[in-house]
Amino acid sequence: MAQSDKRYTIGIDFGTLSGRAVLVDVATGEEVATAVYEYANGVIDRELPGTGEPLPPDTALQDPADYLRTFEVTIPQVMRESGVRPEQVIGIGIDFTACTMLPTKADGTPLCFLDEYRSNLHSWVKLWKHHSAQPYANRLNEIARERGENFLGRYGGKISSEWFFPKAWQILDEAPEIYAAADRLIEAADWVIWQLTGVETRNACTAGYKAIWSKREGFPAREFFAALDPRLADIVDEKMSRTILPQGARAGGLTPQMAEKLGLEPGTAVAVANVDAHVAVPAATVVTPNKMVMVMGTSICHLVLGEEQLEVEGMCGVVEDGILPGFYGYEAGQSAVGDIFGWYVDQGVPARYVDEARKRGINLHQLLEEKASKLAPGESGLLAIDWWNGNRSVLVDADLTGVILGMTLATTPEEIYRALIEATAFGTRVIIDAFESKGLAIEELYACGGLPERNQLLMQIYADVTGRNIKVARSSQTPALGSAMFGAVAAGPEAGGYATITEAAARMAGLKDVVYRPDPDRAVIYEELYREYVQLHDYFGRGPNDVMKRLKALRARVRQG
Amino acid sequence: MAQSDKRYTIGIDFGTLSGRAVLVDVATGEEVATAVYEYANGVIDRELPGTGEPLPPDTALQDPADYLRTFEVTIPQVMRESGVRPEQVIGIGIDFTACTMLPTKADGTPLCFLDEYRSNLHSWVKLWKHHSAQPYANRLNEIARERGENFLGRYGGKISSEWFFPKAWQILDEAPEIYAAADRLIEAADWVIWQLTGVETRNACTAGYKAIWSKREGFPAREFFAALDPRLADIVDEKMSRTILPQGARAGGLTPQMAEKLGLEPGTAVAVANVDAHVAVPAATVVTPNKMVMVMGTSICHLVLGEEQLEVEGMCGVVEDGILPGFYGYEAGQSAVGDIFGWYVDQGVPARYVDEARKRGINLHQLLEEKASKLAPGESGLLAIDWWNGNRSVLVDADLTGVILGMTLATTPEEIYRALIEATAFGTRVIIDAFESKGLAIEELYACGGLPERNQLLMQIYADVTGRNIKVARSSQTPALGSAMFGAVAAGPEAGGYATITEAAARMAGLKDVVYRPDPDRAVIYEELYREYVQLHDYFGRGPNDVMKRLKALRARVRQG
Repeated sequence: MAQSDKRYTIGIDFGTLSGRAVLVDVATGEEVATAVYEYANGVIDRELPGTGEPLPPDTALQDPADYLRTFEVTIPQVMRESGVRPEQVIGIGIDFTACTMLPTKADGTPLCFLDEYRSNLHSWVKLWKHHSAQPYANRLNEIARERGENFLGRYGGKISSEWFFPKAWQILDEAPEIYAAADRLIEAADWVIWQLTGVETRNACTAGYKAIWSKREGFPAREFFAALDPRLADIVDEKMSRTILPQGARAGGLTPQMAEKLGLEPGTAVAVANVDAHVAVPAATVVTPNKMVMVMGTSICHLVLGEEQLEVEGMCGVVEDGILPGFYGYEAGQSAVGDIFGWYVDQGVPARYVDEARKRGINLHQLLEEKASKLAPGESGLLAIDWWNGNRSVLVDADLTGVILGMTLATTPEEIYRALIEATAFGTRVIIDAFESKGLAIEELYACGGLPERNQLLMQIYADVTGRNIKVARSSQTPALGSAMFGAVAAGPEAGGYATITEAAARMAGLKDVVYRPDPDRAVIYEELYREYVQLHDYFGRGPNDVMKRLKALRARVRQG
Repeated sequence: MAQSDKRYTIGIDFGTLSGRAVLVDVATGEEVATAVYEYANGVIDRELPGTGEPLPPDTALQDPADYLRTFEVTIPQVMRESGVRPEQVIGIGIDFTACTMLPTKADGTPLCFLDEYRSNLHSWVKLWKHHSAQPYANRLNEIARERGENFLGRYGGKISSEWFFPKAWQILDEAPEIYAAADRLIEAADWVIWQLTGVETRNACTAGYKAIWSKREGFPAREFFAALDPRLADIVDEKMSRTILPQGARAGGLTPQMAEKLGLEPGTAVAVANVDAHVAVPAATVVTPNKMVMVMGTSICHLVLGEEQLEVEGMCGVVEDGILPGFYGYEAGQSAVGDIFGWYVDQGVPARYVDEARKRGINLHQLLEEKASKLAPGESGLLAIDWWNGNRSVLVDADLTGVILGMTLATTPEEIYRALIEATAFGTRVIIDAFESKGLAIEELYACGGLPERNQLLMQIYADVTGRNIKVARSSQTPALGSAMFGAVAAGPEAGGYATITEAAARMAGLKDVVYRPDPDRAVIYEELYREYVQLHDYFGRGPNDVMKRLKALRARVRQG
């Protein structure tokens, strides 16, 4: 069959600072062309574009125009570079950061596009890491606990300030005129699909993980919302939708106007929106239970498929059909991993290491990795706790902080670096143990994201600490690949795509040749160290000594003066 | 009265790497001339001079020839530089590191001066930080506890491996031929006095703090030594002396040969030997109880005078007449203070700080002090435990290690530096509290040594943390000044000196103008932080979680392979 008969899909991954399109061969998963658009307005956290007014602390906004420009810049570029013809592209999928949400008019126009609202920060997109809704989250959790709301169990006992309803409540409370003007409150993920298809849809992944929805129970009851604020009582019916589509569904076809702009065929299948971490699961070949996918970068997101709904301590969420249709999707996470190593390299590595790295033409991470790999487990006498950015799972406590223990006058930077890597591995092990203690066995680990490509020592330590094989996704852009795979499912077999994501994964996803296998001798030492880690984890994290929280409270008091 | 009628004494301070002589005006304490001799053989810890044979780990020896050269180089130099005439010098005092001990023949000849023993490491001086006698100390403590030996109470429950009998026992056990050949086993402090005077004396300070002697009970019983090893039964009578002179006594007069060599008058009064930290007490003007002297450098030695014998938890020792005659002298200590800051500057400060310090022509400690002094107590959210070199008081446990807790992704180097300073201040506060809990009130602190001269922030933090005024000794070489003061007491009033060390202190010692006073607001915050410190101190140091010891044991196992 000639080149020109090949079929392709496009996956677009909307990240925090940029959007990335990948054109993928549907038959093989080959990533034929890639294009990246850096958002012109990036993360808006100092002042609104066009005003000089400083934004309050913990504000993090985005400009929806950047999402549209991502389509307009990247899709024509991958088409141009690949030479693929429009009719060869049978589907489009996207994934997005979440919860990243915005208020719009009934026709989908973002309020921040309208002059009358544009100078109000609450008319803009609230990015996932917009944290100033924390007081609303606190109040929401309090009321949910008082009312004995069942849904808390599906979210490890706590709704995050990053999620949908705390952000929506903040709009209502701090900008009631924006709330009133908003016909719709919607995830940016779903909003971009709306822009492509002209149809408003809502996907199960963001609804389930971020908006307290479940396939069996729907959204929380009207009474719950009324207890938060009477004006919120009908938020779902007034501003959202009760129609939630499962992952893998077709949202619609590309509108003629959009097709024209992007250089594609009108009617091209568009999948319902997805979330960046979750879409990586099938892209890492995982379509069955008992395999944990780790999306490893500045933080780690842990994803597992299950066949029943279990309440696992401190998980971020469990959502039926939330990752793949037919399974309960479990999400857990570590809020800082690569970020800790980055902090250490910035704040803790002496000048002679910088000189050595410069002379040898390698970066500091490479130098530290090389030196740290000469150490045996236990050789440093150090033990660290990886809570530089709090603990997301299993303790769900943002006020916990980092620890390094065991220093002597002979302690070296590479010993500290290794102890930090080990601490994050112990953190993953705690999450695995939490799943297993509820009967969800984790047999193998699958890694994707930036860290597995850069740090082999880290991968080996994770294998040794968890006692499990780790396989690594072939693609270095798994979210975009996963989105392209969902695009192929939205297109369906009749158009040259696939009937299910499982079929798509079998053809389009793959693994690298390398498998990290636990070394039995090292695993024995790490078992000892892990027991020490757990003891300190429970001492500082479960109440015997709340020193970290008291220090944080003292710090806040002192800083306020 | 003409210049030529002034009277002087010379104090010589034998340190770890060099000896220092100071010529002092007896009437005023003015330090007229100073000379330093760097030991040619320094600390011998790799190979014996003249042999290529590597030394075992934890060996630290010295060459007694370096002590003689100290006299021969420094005393003529201060005489020359000052223009003082020999007959104007009425007395000499010395202080030494301790326990620093050696085996000699009956005439005082060190065994390491004799060809037949010189190639045996045990014929050399065992320096205070020679640590390979640890197994002997462990066994000694075990036997002492089994036998219920009372003396343990005077030493916080434990005899250190650095002290006299573990070192003597090591010689016997590992080199019985050296032990047999040694007519005398003697502190280097007493040995140099012997060289000056031709008379073997033993001083109460080293006997009391290092050789388990007390004025009322003498040395441990023959049965105790026999229980260690039958060959040790008569060690005191065979190799030592039961005649112990109090601090301030006259050991003898300068021999004609030594006087000739040094350019002094024969018969010049020589005081009994002293220990570097202890001799600093009167040199810091302290001659009465309830004042704690802190000798602050790489470590801190805490010294207090008392009127009765109390058993204070974990103190290094209490010795009647051990610091000043007529008082019980208490010693406690922190095994790493300046050493921790040095470690941090070497191992933990990023390159941009090094660049900034270089540009501004200051050192890293100065830069960090400047940045750290802009922080308020509690502002960093950090808390550290200062056990980088174990805990000497009150826990007496070398296997404890350092901790830093409270890190976030925003933690800065100056925050860590300040937390390390605060940790050492909390360590001092624990020692003060231990004294006060037994009824020995500590009303004021007196500082001397290198740190108080270099780091004002540190001094202010110590005042704020302890809630006490801190005065600072005028002299930057308090041990040598203190030795010169004891030289004036050995000379006595008839020769132009003083009858007592109290009189000498009134004339010769002094304080700087500065007094560090606690700030009430900061003290309130530090009270909170100190409570957190104590909780962690007890958790890691008193048994609830022996993780530090287990990590050290694991490290030792791993390193052995």
